[in-house]
Amino acid sequence: MDRPRYARRVARQTDSSLKEVLESFPGVISFAGGLPDEQVFPVEQIAAVVDEIAHAPVAWQYLPTEGHPALREAIAGYMAELGVEAGVDNVLITQGSQQALDLVAKALVDPGDRVLMEAPGYLGAIGAAQNYEAELYDVPVGAGGIDLDRLADAPKGAKYLYTVSTFHNPAGCSIPRDHRPRILEIAASKEIYVVEDGAYRELCYDGQPEPPIKSFDQEGRVIYLGSFSKALVPGVRVGWIVADREIIRTLALLKQATDLATNTLGQLFVLRWLERYGLRPPVDLYRQKRDRALAALEQAMPPGVSWNRPRGGFFLWLELPRGLDAGEMLRHARRNGVTYVPGAAFRGPRNALRFSFSQVPLEEIEPGVQRLARTIREHL
Amino acid sequence: MDRPRYARRVARQTDSSLKEVLESFPGVISFAGGLPDEQVFPVEQIAAVVDEIAHAPVAWQYLPTEGHPALREAIAGYMAELGVEAGVDNVLITQGSQQALDLVAKALVDPGDRVLMEAPGYLGAIGAAQNYEAELYDVPVGAGGIDLDRLADAPKGAKYLYTVSTFHNPAGCSIPRDHRPRILEIAASKEIYVVEDGAYRELCYDGQPEPPIKSFDQEGRVIYLGSFSKALVPGVRVGWIVADREIIRTLALLKQATDLATNTLGQLFVLRWLERYGLRPPVDLYRQKRDRALAALEQAMPPGVSWNRPRGGFFLWLELPRGLDAGEMLRHARRNGVTYVPGAAFRGPRNALRFSFSQVPLEEIEPGVQRLARTIREHL
Repeated sequence: MDRPRYARRVARQTDSSLKEVLESFPGVISFAGGLPDEQVFPVEQIAAVVDEIAHAPVAWQYLPTEGHPALREAIAGYMAELGVEAGVDNVLITQGSQQALDLVAKALVDPGDRVLMEAPGYLGAIGAAQNYEAELYDVPVGAGGIDLDRLADAPKGAKYLYTVSTFHNPAGCSIPRDHRPRILEIAASKEIYVVEDGAYRELCYDGQPEPPIKSFDQEGRVIYLGSFSKALVPGVRVGWIVADREIIRTLALLKQATDLATNTLGQLFVLRWLERYGLRPPVDLYRQKRDRALAALEQAMPPGVSWNRPRGGFFLWLELPRGLDAGEMLRHARRNGVTYVPGAAFRGPRNALRFSFSQVPLEEIEPGVQRLARTIREHL
Repeated sequence: MDRPRYARRVARQTDSSLKEVLESFPGVISFAGGLPDEQVFPVEQIAAVVDEIAHAPVAWQYLPTEGHPALREAIAGYMAELGVEAGVDNVLITQGSQQALDLVAKALVDPGDRVLMEAPGYLGAIGAAQNYEAELYDVPVGAGGIDLDRLADAPKGAKYLYTVSTFHNPAGCSIPRDHRPRILEIAASKEIYVVEDGAYRELCYDGQPEPPIKSFDQEGRVIYLGSFSKALVPGVRVGWIVADREIIRTLALLKQATDLATNTLGQLFVLRWLERYGLRPPVDLYRQKRDRALAALEQAMPPGVSWNRPRGGFFLWLELPRGLDAGEMLRHARRNGVTYVPGAAFRGPRNALRFSFSQVPLEEIEPGVQRLARTIREHL
């Protein structure tokens, strides 16, 4: 057979799995992987809830494309707790929030349309937009979240701004409260949607997270994406979108021919879980890991290295002294028995790196940080 | 907020859920719905298998985008039983076979690209292609499956032919064995892929189904889609693609930014089920329903009405005397207490209708057919 005549989008798509960077090596302590720690999964409670629902035939039948009505209602109720007014018609259940990203791009992006992306940014959001041949325009993200001045400078005519507003992937930062309504004003002046990804929001280790940008939204400008992947378990592949009802209707129409419906057992399980336990993930282990990492960094890092102190999520963002290249340093780091993801992999600065504390065993954090510090020192 | 500036594809997409036609009315016997009958779900066995796997943390973690390696291997083994040579690298696990249709169109279709569609045809395949702005070219399907002469007459330059080769939705027919290699020859002469949808294949009530077109494929021309939705349970949302490994690689790349991975519990469940029970669905109830329907039609239908006798699947295809319009007749049928889906809803002839026997209770088949016969008689 001849070479496949692929659609143009295929040439645009690059592997966003970071497979190479995430490869594990024996004896190497990894701050690279960004998955949840399976230790925190409350499997016995999960299995008990699953067993309660798995005996009913409806648990194995199709559900409507929009999602289980009671789950949509439960999510509307949850969003109300976050200060977001929503009815059932404002909620679409998705196959994880990655599908939400796909559907939003599918609904909004024609080839060549501009999308404003955070830099560094979430690779899944970049990939979803590229699947529809978007032109990406980078808006820098710093310690205070997305840079408002640079956002204001972005060209008009884009379709949407994508932002992980709280406990950012990869940068760990959150958009300050007073910047949130300001982002809406800028978006309004540019007539674009704000796609607010709240996947990490429930993983808050101190106090309360900032209110979602969506809670300031009076005109249906924000398309909010929520997920059970971090707040509960990822394998269930259930997420949600809260948006204007006309947008939800359109996204559901596209979802119909995309995968018909989200898996039924996952929806029923999440519904029962919400009813019984709410969405309050056990965060003690993650908090401990973050604190252990911060203490170790404080102790071990040479001057000129800086990092943030996120109140939640999975990631710290380390900035190395100018001139150091975290990508070039990676091979050396592995030889020293430690690994991470270079900032450039997320379209971020070359002298930065993502330090993930979610998956690494607690007791490996201190030795891992020491190895990283030694690697940096050897590069200075 | 202003009106959404949607992508062009949104205007192309129509509601393929048949919501209006599938609406149920009290006292109305429905031959419209095409879902599996929940009565046949072996829920106790399912729940037992689920309980075996649900206690392990890995059942709730992410899986690789390509799918669980052991499940890919098990499916390669299953395909070998159907005469299809495949290795692990030839298999992609999908979120039901609707996602397979989405990914195939995503990989192959640029706006304006032509796709050869069966008429009547499966609405989910039509919708998936339309989501990527394909131009559809209809190839008629008759009692002997897709019309080979009309297929041969189709213009060159299309990207693929879509066909439900066995126990067709909506027409109930199967492509005869000797037509199958012939379809490959025609496809080769046109340099197009054949997307073979085998979703109903396992629901065979007499003897064995014809071998898949894929089993005659020597050059990687066929992209085969399989599904557990009909052969096991649909709510699990697990399907698969078997194709050339380079195509699988590309589809997986696109899937990564589409939904990251198929739900984990579903994959583990299906894997365990295959190991323990194989893919041999209980078909006795469906066979009884089909036989009951055929006997009732034989007895009740006025001359000039014809139908097929499928060996499997969920559907019969009724042709009314020329001049009758099944769509116009529908309101009258409902008043008479029976409903169905008009053939035109599937881009088929106006004097045909899809008669689904999958969901209707066994004891309602005879009275339902009598009501339908009366309706037709009143229209003659």
